[in-house]
Amino acid sequence: MIKRVLVGLLLFALANLALAQSDPLPSWRDDVNKKAIEDFVGDVTDEASADFVPPEERIATFGNDGTLWVEQPIYAEFQFAIDRINTLAPQHPEWKTTEPFSLVLAGNMNAFLAGGAESVVPILTASHSGMTREDFEIIVRDWLATARHPTKKRLYTQLVYQPMIELLEYLRSNGFKTFIVSGGGVEFMRAFAEQSYGVPPEQVVGSEGKLKFEMRDGQPLLLKLPDVQFVDNNAGKPIGIETNIGRRPIAAFGNSDSDLQMLQWTWAGSGKRFCLYVHHDDAVREWAYDRQSPIGRLDLGLDEARVKHWTVVSMKDDWKTIFPTK
Amino acid sequence: MIKRVLVGLLLFALANLALAQSDPLPSWRDDVNKKAIEDFVGDVTDEASADFVPPEERIATFGNDGTLWVEQPIYAEFQFAIDRINTLAPQHPEWKTTEPFSLVLAGNMNAFLAGGAESVVPILTASHSGMTREDFEIIVRDWLATARHPTKKRLYTQLVYQPMIELLEYLRSNGFKTFIVSGGGVEFMRAFAEQSYGVPPEQVVGSEGKLKFEMRDGQPLLLKLPDVQFVDNNAGKPIGIETNIGRRPIAAFGNSDSDLQMLQWTWAGSGKRFCLYVHHDDAVREWAYDRQSPIGRLDLGLDEARVKHWTVVSMKDDWKTIFPTK
Repeated sequence: MIKRVLVGLLLFALANLALAQSDPLPSWRDDVNKKAIEDFVGDVTDEASADFVPPEERIATFGNDGTLWVEQPIYAEFQFAIDRINTLAPQHPEWKTTEPFSLVLAGNMNAFLAGGAESVVPILTASHSGMTREDFEIIVRDWLATARHPTKKRLYTQLVYQPMIELLEYLRSNGFKTFIVSGGGVEFMRAFAEQSYGVPPEQVVGSEGKLKFEMRDGQPLLLKLPDVQFVDNNAGKPIGIETNIGRRPIAAFGNSDSDLQMLQWTWAGSGKRFCLYVHHDDAVREWAYDRQSPIGRLDLGLDEARVKHWTVVSMKDDWKTIFPTK
Repeated sequence: MIKRVLVGLLLFALANLALAQSDPLPSWRDDVNKKAIEDFVGDVTDEASADFVPPEERIATFGNDGTLWVEQPIYAEFQFAIDRINTLAPQHPEWKTTEPFSLVLAGNMNAFLAGGAESVVPILTASHSGMTREDFEIIVRDWLATARHPTKKRLYTQLVYQPMIELLEYLRSNGFKTFIVSGGGVEFMRAFAEQSYGVPPEQVVGSEGKLKFEMRDGQPLLLKLPDVQFVDNNAGKPIGIETNIGRRPIAAFGNSDSDLQMLQWTWAGSGKRFCLYVHHDDAVREWAYDRQSPIGRLDLGLDEARVKHWTVVSMKDDWKTIFPTK
C-alpha cells in the first residue's frame, strides 16, 4: 500500500517536472518580450489574480500577412491573383490592351503596384469571382499546393512563422479563442488557416466579395460576384471584429499600420490588455522593412507602440527560428 | 484484488445506466420527430458509422424569431424599435408628422406593418443607430430586463422555447458548434444569446448596420450608423453562413420561409444532413399560424419539407412544455 502511494507520488512529480520543463514557445528567445507574453497569459488565466479573464472573453486576434506568414515582395494573395489572371488571359483577349490587366500580363509589377487600389481591385475581383465558393476553394488549394515563393522557393504554407504558430497554440492551450483578422480575402485564407494555423474557418475574419445565392437545376449555389462587400483593413479591422466576433479582443497581434486600429480598439478595453507588433528587422533570414515599405508599412504603429509600451518583437533578436523546418 | 475489480465494474455499470436514463431532451415527447433528431446525432457522432462527421464539421444553424423564441404578434426587435422610437420622440418633434414615425407614435401598428420594408427600415435604423455599440448593448439589455410581452406578460427572455434550449445543449454536448443565423440585428441578439441560448457572440450571425470607427479624445469608438450593411434573411442566410462561418452546416433549424434557403443550402451538402422546421400549430399554448401569416410565414417551406422529408415539429404534439417554468 505504502509502495503504491510512493510510486504514485513519484509519477505525479515526474509528470509535473516534464510539464514545467516543456517550453510551449521553444522558438522564442528567453528575453523580455517572451516574458511579457508569458506574464500576460499567466495573469489573465490566474483565478486568484485581479486581472483574471474568464475563458469566453479570452479573444485574441491576429493579422495574417506579415504577422503569421511572409508578405514580401508582394502579398501571397496578390501573387495568386496575378497567376490566375495569367491563367485566364486566353479567355480574355481584351486584357492585353486594358490596364491594369495589360501591366500584369506584361509582368510590369512596379507600374501595376504604383496604380494603388485602382490597379489592385480589378485584378483581385477578376481573379476571385465568376465561380462558386467551392470551385474557388479548389483553385486556391491547388495554387497553394504548387506555387513557390519567388525568392525563398518554398511553398507559401512553408513560409509561416514558426514562433507565431507556437504562440497561437500556447494561447489556445490557455483557453483563448484565436481569430485571424486580416485584409486578405476571407475565403482565400480559410483554404489554409485550419491546417497551417489551427484556426477554423469560422474564426477567420477578412475582406469579403459579394455573393449571390442561386438555384441551378434544383441545386443551391453560392456564386462569387466581382464586387467588394467589405474591406477588413485599417478601420475595417475593428469593424470586422465587431461584426464577426462581437466581443472586444483582450490581445491583438499585428505587424503594420493596417493593424493599428485593431490594436487601438483592443488596448482601449477595460482590464488587462496585450498588444504586439512583429517588427521585420531581419534582412538575412527574412526581410527588413518598416516606415518606407509599400507592403506592410509600419510607421504610425511603431510610434504608438513606443508611447503605449506595446510589445515590439524583433524577428532578428527574439526569434531563434523563423520558418518551420519541414 | 477481485473485490476491487468487481466494485469498479459495478460503478461503471451504474454510471452508464444513469447516463442512459437521463434524457437530454425531456421536453420532447418520445415520438418519431424526437427519434429523428436522436438518430441523426447518433449517426454523425458514431465513428464506426459511414455517416460519421468529425467534430469540427458539426455545424448547426438556428433561426431565432419563431425558432428559438416567440415572434407573435410582432418580432421582439420590432417592439424594441417601437418602444425606442417612443422614448426618442421628444427629441424629434418632426416625427409627429412624418411617416412611418407618426404611425408608430399613434400606435397604428396595422398601417405601419402594411408599409413593409419602406415602413420598417426607417424605424429599425433610427432606433438602432446614433450611439456607440456599447451604449446600444446597454439599451437592449435594459429593455430586455423590463419589457413584457403584450399578451403573455412575461419578459421576452422567458418566452424562449424550452425544447429548443434542450436541443441546442444536446447538440453541443455531442460536439456540435451551434450558431444563430437570423434576420434579426446581430448586436440585438448578442445582448441575450449567450445567457439565453448558450450561444456566444461570435456564433451569432445576423443582419448588420454600418459601423464607423472614430477616435474621440484619443479613445477609439465604434458608432452605429443609420445604414444597412447586410440583411441576413432568405437568400441572405446562406450568404451570411458562408461569410461568417465559412462551412456548410450539417443541420439547420428554422420555422419560416425566410429560413428556406438556409435549409436548402444545408440539405444540398454531401453526407448525412438534418433539416427541421418548427411548425406553429398550438393556438392554446403559443400561436397557430403558417401559410397566411405576415409574421413568420411558412408556406413554400412547408411544401418543400414534405417533398424532402425534412422533420416538421408540431409544437402541439411534439413538445410537452413550450416555455421554461421560471
